[in-house]
Amino acid sequence: MANAFFTDLITTISERGRTLLRGGGAPVDKHDAKSLAELCEALVSGAGEASGTAMARDVLDGYHDLDADGRKAFFTALVHDFGPDKAKLAKAIEDWRATPSDEGASALHFASEPRRQELIRRLNRAPGGTPELVAMRTDLQDLLKGNPELFALDRDVVHLLSSWFNRGFLVLRRIDWSTPANILEQIIRYEAVHEIHDWDDLRRRIDPVDRRCYAFFHPAMPDAPLIFVEVALTETIPGAIAPLLAVDRPPVPADRARTAVFYSISNTQRGLGGISFGNFLIKQVVEELRRELPKLDTFVTLSPVPGFMTWLKSTTDATDEDRNVLKLLNEPRWVEDADMTAELRAVIEPLAAHYFLKARTTKGKLIDSVARFHLGNGARLERINWLGDLSSKGQRESATVMVNYLYRLEDIEKNHEAYANDGEVVASSAVKKLLRTEGRRRLDMRLSS
Amino acid sequence: MANAFFTDLITTISERGRTLLRGGGAPVDKHDAKSLAELCEALVSGAGEASGTAMARDVLDGYHDLDADGRKAFFTALVHDFGPDKAKLAKAIEDWRATPSDEGASALHFASEPRRQELIRRLNRAPGGTPELVAMRTDLQDLLKGNPELFALDRDVVHLLSSWFNRGFLVLRRIDWSTPANILEQIIRYEAVHEIHDWDDLRRRIDPVDRRCYAFFHPAMPDAPLIFVEVALTETIPGAIAPLLAVDRPPVPADRARTAVFYSISNTQRGLGGISFGNFLIKQVVEELRRELPKLDTFVTLSPVPGFMTWLKSTTDATDEDRNVLKLLNEPRWVEDADMTAELRAVIEPLAAHYFLKARTTKGKLIDSVARFHLGNGARLERINWLGDLSSKGQRESATVMVNYLYRLEDIEKNHEAYANDGEVVASSAVKKLLRTEGRRRLDMRLSS
Amino acid sequence: MANAFFTDLITTISERGRTLLRGGGAPVDKHDAKSLAELCEALVSGAGEASGTAMARDVLDGYHDLDADGRKAFFTALVHDFGPDKAKLAKAIEDWRATPSDEGASALHFASEPRRQELIRRLNRAPGGTPELVAMRTDLQDLLKGNPELFALDRDVVHLLSSWFNRGFLVLRRIDWSTPANILEQIIRYEAVHEIHDWDDLRRRIDPVDRRCYAFFHPAMPDAPLIFVEVALTETIPGAIAPLLAVDRPPVPADRARTAVFYSISNTQRGLGGISFGNFLIKQVVEELRRELPKLDTFVTLSPVPGFMTWLKSTTDATDEDRNVLKLLNEPRWVEDADMTAELRAVIEPLAAHYFLKARTTKGKLIDSVARFHLGNGARLERINWLGDLSSKGQRESATVMVNYLYRLEDIEKNHEAYANDGEVVASSAVKKLLRTEGRRRLDMRLSS
Amino acid sequence: MANAFFTDLITTISERGRTLLRGGGAPVDKHDAKSLAELCEALVSGAGEASGTAMARDVLDGYHDLDADGRKAFFTALVHDFGPDKAKLAKAIEDWRATPSDEGASALHFASEPRRQELIRRLNRAPGGTPELVAMRTDLQDLLKGNPELFALDRDVVHLLSSWFNRGFLVLRRIDWSTPANILEQIIRYEAVHEIHDWDDLRRRIDPVDRRCYAFFHPAMPDAPLIFVEVALTETIPGAIAPLLAVDRPPVPADRARTAVFYSISNTQRGLGGISFGNFLIKQVVEELRRELPKLDTFVTLSPVPGFMTWLKSTTDATDEDRNVLKLLNEPRWVEDADMTAELRAVIEPLAAHYFLKARTTKGKLIDSVARFHLGNGARLERINWLGDLSSKGQRESATVMVNYLYRLEDIEKNHEAYANDGEVVASSAVKKLLRTEGRRRLDMRLSS
Repeated sequence: MANAFFTDLITTISERGRTLLRGGGAPVDKHDAKSLAELCEALVSGAGEASGTAMARDVLDGYHDLDADGRKAFFTALVHDFGPDKAKLAKAIEDWRATPSDEGASALHFASEPRRQELIRRLNRAPGGTPELVAMRTDLQDLLKGNPELFALDRDVVHLLSSWFNRGFLVLRRIDWSTPANILEQIIRYEAVHEIHDWDDLRRRIDPVDRRCYAFFHPAMPDAPLIFVEVALTETIPGAIAPLLAVDRPPVPADRARTAVFYSISNTQRGLGGISFGNFLIKQVVEELRRELPKLDTFVTLSPVPGFMTWLKSTTDATDEDRNVLKLLNEPRWVEDADMTAELRAVIEPLAAHYFLKARTTKGKLIDSVARFHLGNGARLERINWLGDLSSKGQRESATVMVNYLYRLEDIEKNHEAYANDGEVVASSAVKKLLRTEGRRRLDMRLSS
Repeated sequence: MANAFFTDLITTISERGRTLLRGGGAPVDKHDAKSLAELCEALVSGAGEASGTAMARDVLDGYHDLDADGRKAFFTALVHDFGPDKAKLAKAIEDWRATPSDEGASALHFASEPRRQELIRRLNRAPGGTPELVAMRTDLQDLLKGNPELFALDRDVVHLLSSWFNRGFLVLRRIDWSTPANILEQIIRYEAVHEIHDWDDLRRRIDPVDRRCYAFFHPAMPDAPLIFVEVALTETIPGAIAPLLAVDRPPVPADRARTAVFYSISNTQRGLGGISFGNFLIKQVVEELRRELPKLDTFVTLSPVPGFMTWLKSTTDATDEDRNVLKLLNEPRWVEDADMTAELRAVIEPLAAHYFLKARTTKGKLIDSVARFHLGNGARLERINWLGDLSSKGQRESATVMVNYLYRLEDIEKNHEAYANDGEVVASSAVKKLLRTEGRRRLDMRLSS
Repeated sequence: MANAFFTDLITTISERGRTLLRGGGAPVDKHDAKSLAELCEALVSGAGEASGTAMARDVLDGYHDLDADGRKAFFTALVHDFGPDKAKLAKAIEDWRATPSDEGASALHFASEPRRQELIRRLNRAPGGTPELVAMRTDLQDLLKGNPELFALDRDVVHLLSSWFNRGFLVLRRIDWSTPANILEQIIRYEAVHEIHDWDDLRRRIDPVDRRCYAFFHPAMPDAPLIFVEVALTETIPGAIAPLLAVDRPPVPADRARTAVFYSISNTQRGLGGISFGNFLIKQVVEELRRELPKLDTFVTLSPVPGFMTWLKSTTDATDEDRNVLKLLNEPRWVEDADMTAELRAVIEPLAAHYFLKARTTKGKLIDSVARFHLGNGARLERINWLGDLSSKGQRESATVMVNYLYRLEDIEKNHEAYANDGEVVASSAVKKLLRTEGRRRLDMRLSS
Repeated sequence: MANAFFTDLITTISERGRTLLRGGGAPVDKHDAKSLAELCEALVSGAGEASGTAMARDVLDGYHDLDADGRKAFFTALVHDFGPDKAKLAKAIEDWRATPSDEGASALHFASEPRRQELIRRLNRAPGGTPELVAMRTDLQDLLKGNPELFALDRDVVHLLSSWFNRGFLVLRRIDWSTPANILEQIIRYEAVHEIHDWDDLRRRIDPVDRRCYAFFHPAMPDAPLIFVEVALTETIPGAIAPLLAVDRPPVPADRARTAVFYSISNTQRGLGGISFGNFLIKQVVEELRRELPKLDTFVTLSPVPGFMTWLKSTTDATDEDRNVLKLLNEPRWVEDADMTAELRAVIEPLAAHYFLKARTTKGKLIDSVARFHLGNGARLERINWLGDLSSKGQRESATVMVNYLYRLEDIEKNHEAYANDGEVVASSAVKKLLRTEGRRRLDMRLSS
């Protein structure tokens, strides 16, 4: 039983967004990019201070009405005409060079702030401004390629959004069958790992007693889940995705579940690209689940390996004999053939271990983006699952391999440090053994050749 | 009827704050300022990334346990040891001096960002972090006097809080007799203009049909009104405060109210000092009231003139004759004497008009802080009210004078521009006439002398 | 902005229902009908008073575990063994016969109350008891046919449910795209007039700006809409359903809508059969819509005529010539043939007018159940729409005829009285003219034959 | 995290109540009792069916405007003119006497229902009708004395209210410092056992970590707590009230609390007099507390003994010697005198035990109303506390004696049965020993005399 006074706060925000009628008032002259930039100038200068939020709303509406060329021109104006005050900046640099004090450093920082940062902050004052700024960023991202001068603007936008979407302002909400349809619709749309086909499929993901789904929301965008994770409660660590998603599977009774499996995590807002929520989401969900279900003792992912197949095709770490076996992957329906799958397994498991533990990009980084995410979060590579994902996507991207990353809150910092400082991938002995076996196998091959 | 899904968002935040148990887990070694700074170093560096929000919570708890000296030492460490990366900064300056491009300006700005800004953002990630940072700012303000080197830190804190408490994130809530007691208690405590004596007095301010009270809240501090305004609905513009607050006054029926009187506006969070909410609050409340009560056509303040008496005592704009009359202010109970009040009025009204319209500080600014606020917001000086505030405070600070500032949304920008650009105080002809009368009076005096 | 304290009340109820775990505690011996009736005896007698709600919960759980035979036996026991106290009743009858006072009448009423009424009231005390009693009534209804002795029990159950679901306890809620999925799912399932095919179809009914859906809820069953109505906002009174439900129709802008069309109203709870909500629902929705959209001036249904075709086939009011024309209804695709539809119209419109205005059952009642409902509520028969419903169901049941009933709040009582007291169907002159035309047509036919 | 869709249901109800403006529409002719009864006749007959809820609202408004005489006349009309249909009743009696079947009994019951029951149900349909009916009952109660013919009406009103306020419809809410002020105000006003002096006093009752307050609400009266209980969490069973309520007492840390003390329980709605909620409230609060604080193992009251002093003065169970000692109670400040209190204790403790265990009214009932309540609920008399309540009220009513009743859920039914069937007061051995001691004492006295 909670303090309910504030339960309305967010409703208020939500309604404000909905009742916002573009052009609800008197008809307004349309802006081109140039006149819109002038309005922005008025907004950052004195005139905007008195207008409350009206002028900010006008700019956002004007932006909304621009076409693609207009938006590009508008963004370009923000880069060129809303940089720092150059005279002030020059002065601050001189002062700093003369006396590099703490105070001077501070002065230099504030003197160098582009005026567009203040502009963006003032745009955010408009009712419903925040989601519109996020949408504006989406447009901006589309324009970055081919317009590198816009990076300076993007950097400012990301800087502010990153500050505003600070984890301290995010709220975790469980998503279930009593969640409003307009939210659920976005879960269907944005699920990026294992597609949700329709509302029945959705219901199987969120409604059974052994399923959970959680999302982060921001109070200024209450209708938009920012990121969500789907969780299956199981008795043991699963090695394949299909049984988890089977239509007719019997649910696991709550008192027998010992393992929480994070089998899908998806972002929804392209405009928030580059701002990371997943790390925080997983950790808070682990805490929520431990509180609700004290019997859970294992928190693990069942993850795809999206970079594996590409690497496999080109790696020099595979022997000629390996390559011969790997040709079987071109056979139709090889996954249904016990002999072929056995032969492939003997080759692919050690290569997969190598892929995670040894292979690196030319810059020395892990090849797999999913691996970088979880290992960077402090998880441990727990298990490599042959035939984990038999879908065509699973075959195409990772030769059916899936992996489990294990989250143990008490090891997270240590694991992260090992990875961040020394590039070490913390892995279970089972995974490491696959690698040692590989070593022996090569030795054997050489000896026998 | 609203989308209610998100009504729980804020409840969740609110509960999170409440159930937060300091030292609820294992006992932790106490930090001194030095070891706390080291923990901060870990937090801004890699280790903090993996810890989710735990390390941020540790720093906030450690800060909480510091004594006054420890806090000062800790703040000082933030100034000295968490500035920008000097090597990067030097490089960025060189680049900029070589080629002062938009890109280089941006690089310079980010290179000069003190590392303590990122530290503060990470501290905010902790559950309940935002209100603790606001409280930390309160401590910091107390230390600024006598420790000017801390200004660099304060500037960063204010910069971030100002961004986070952007008007776009604030939510307006009506405060009435069905508001939770823990909120109402703060209304009693923080009312700064006309003291609320007890719960009965409070009820008279918020419960009758002709009274309104509104406050801004921030979703991360749902139990704390940030600023609130008290409004009386009246038939005409009132000239005195006592009748508005009289215990036994009959309420004005809703259908007869034409005027909304903002008679008190108070901030509550000293830690947010320097971040202005009042401008936005008044304007949104005007909009709310117009929506709810379309018959309202006048939005006006009934404001104190806190600087008037001080000015009056020392101004050279008063004649000797004026001064003679003004001595009456020293008479006990002069306010009850019709002759004395009449004599004083003839002198004080013109001087008050002069105080607002002509008198300026040595820097050319308006003397009165309340006047600067409302005129800066685009209001108009509407009326000067002799005997407006007969309380001892009213006599002491403003010789009983109160004024009305009129908010007309359609004139706000124009008024603000006139004030901001030309220093012009937009005033009604009634107020100006007092001044002209004064002019004539002086002329008369000179002629007759 | 509302008092939010109580927003949690219903959440509490809703959660209570969900977390209710059958057999969550120690395993309980299963009941047969006989032992369950004994437990009921304990519940209505003293022992039940002290148990709080535990014993009521046990009875409901025991009932839940009974099979079909067990339930019938249990209901039969309630009829035979939980009637009134016969000795008390005999005494009350004697007293009344001796002195028929107000007091004696009251005593007689309470003495004759079957003990099962108190039993049902005590069962309702259990957490989540109300929806289980409604479900029990559903079972009971299935058994009524063939077991007429159970009517006495049904009468008691209906009496109590009718009192508990008093309109004063019902809450109107708008259903839209932000409504929880578990509610929306029931809208899809229970729509009884124009089937909702899937979630996309649902969305077209509730999400566009010119659509509304409202439902009544009871606080003790917050997850269950009891009855709902679908409304289309239009410019004029529509004569056909297909354009209203067309997939690609452009929505009517809010400022052009003048008419609210109630085109579907459906009950969901079979266990509440016989308790009428529709009358209240329509009237409150009219009030809601008038408040939200003051420009609406016409409130009308677009209703099926489910009894028309059956009547048409057997009525003696049709001439032989009529019958000849009506044979066209057997032609495949007659609805697409302009000649046939014209010929049929000339015959069917007058007959439809006759059906509503003149035809009656042998008991003198209106034949059409939908007509009885709306005319009994005080609506007026406004228009008969030929080719209103071209669906196979529409052809089969009403030869494509639909009608509009007009709700004018100021005429409702008068219309109702005319209908209730005199059996008069209040109809527009347009409808009446169809009838007069018919009269003339017959005369013409006779003259010309 | 809950299904929040319905959190608005109650808000809706609450607002409906508030915005209800009497006479908001056109001026209506005032009713006298006679014309109001005629309107009631229209409401129960056909006309009311079509009017939705408008006619019910008119009746309630009309009642509201009646003066005291009018109300009495109106109630009298309800008794005389809204009884059962006498013809139908006579027929049902005849049928029943001819064949006393289950069906006939049912028919008789419904035939004997006074028409005013249906009237009251229809009045309840009006928006905000329920609280007005409760208020009407308050008026009715005031009139009962001296107008015994109104009992028949009161019986009907109570019958319906009792059904509507069925425990299954009540919602338990915690009352704390974040509860709306309009609710808290009622806690202050209606506290009937240990007066709450002001808001500070209230806060001490509900805000500290070792205090709880819970109330039942009905969804149709969301602003009105119906009954509330105040609870103190303690380490051991307390024997006196003053330390519990002391202004400066240190709170008991949550992890040391083992005992929940129900020290005050108060009803608020006089119009619901005769409908018992306390039994259910205590039991649900016990369950709530056990869930929240699993370490609690003792649930006990600290209760007044309001009938003790009256009994003590007149009982023939006291010896002459007892009486001599009891005269000390007339000494001023006897409670501060160690000798007197010791002497009194020796006499009063055994008499108190006798009062509970042996003394009975002439009808054989327990004398003490509080004892009847708790023992009837299945509690056990646990301890008699000499000097438990030193307040003037405590001295006056119970010679400072307070008692603890112990609630053990597993013994409740058994205890209740013993009390209900055999009149046995289940008491601890400590209490019984006081009695035995008494026995011995008398024996001793006799022997020594």
